[in-house]
Amino acid sequence: MNKIAHIGIAVSSLDETIPFYRDSLGLSFEGIEEVPSEHVRVAFFKIGESAIELLEPLNEESAIAKYIKKKGEGIHHIALDVDNIQERLNHLKEQGIPLIHEQPKTGAHNSQVAFLHPKAAQGVLYELCEQEQEDH
Amino acid sequence: MNKIAHIGIAVSSLDETIPFYRDSLGLSFEGIEEVPSEHVRVAFFKIGESAIELLEPLNEESAIAKYIKKKGEGIHHIALDVDNIQERLNHLKEQGIPLIHEQPKTGAHNSQVAFLHPKAAQGVLYELCEQEQEDH
Repeated sequence: MNKIAHIGIAVSSLDETIPFYRDSLGLSFEGIEEVPSEHVRVAFFKIGESAIELLEPLNEESAIAKYIKKKGEGIHHIALDVDNIQERLNHLKEQGIPLIHEQPKTGAHNSQVAFLHPKAAQGVLYELCEQEQEDH
Repeated sequence: MNKIAHIGIAVSSLDETIPFYRDSLGLSFEGIEEVPSEHVRVAFFKIGESAIELLEPLNEESAIAKYIKKKGEGIHHIALDVDNIQERLNHLKEQGIPLIHEQPKTGAHNSQVAFLHPKAAQGVLYELCEQEQEDH
């Protein structure tokens, strides 16, 4: 594991939440991206080598909408940056760690991502995240 | 804000949780420290410039014990590294951000720490953390 890639935080409204992160904490606001496949709108803030992502549900189908309905707003997941995500997933599977995704899928910024099952980690939802290689 | 200093995770048992972080995720295990003032035992894992801290309550008085009783095991707080914690706290107070501590107190590894009130950030508990200066 190289670093914490980001912390994903479920919020009802980006508009109501962004000012605290941008103006009060003074984090660097990197913009908003809509991710229709996940039914979310995401606001990105850079902090050191990591990021904080605020996740606003676009509709009731969104996993984030369901999370907020069940648990309220709050920290949804921690994403860890890895170099070879498929190798990592195979390794975890061999160890009997429960996975939501055994194969990575494409996430924001063309990263490859996969979630571990929260029962692997006392209810904490971990995402593995491999950044797009920029070797061209 | 310089970086994410650490993510604090409330767990019932360090012994049951450490193997996942050390052996499955492969994080660098930095040891265990007892913090009697907070009624917790803390296991430290390094990841990039940040850390993951597993917090086990020592007794029922611990805020972590109360948290687990109310919400179950899971992510308890996010600590952000700052250079001048008192200046930061003054700035937040001026902006009307609700604080748990208006003055920093001494935390693990002789850091100076203070918590914002979770209602400042949609239920997310943020800690500000100033590392001990090593200029001697």
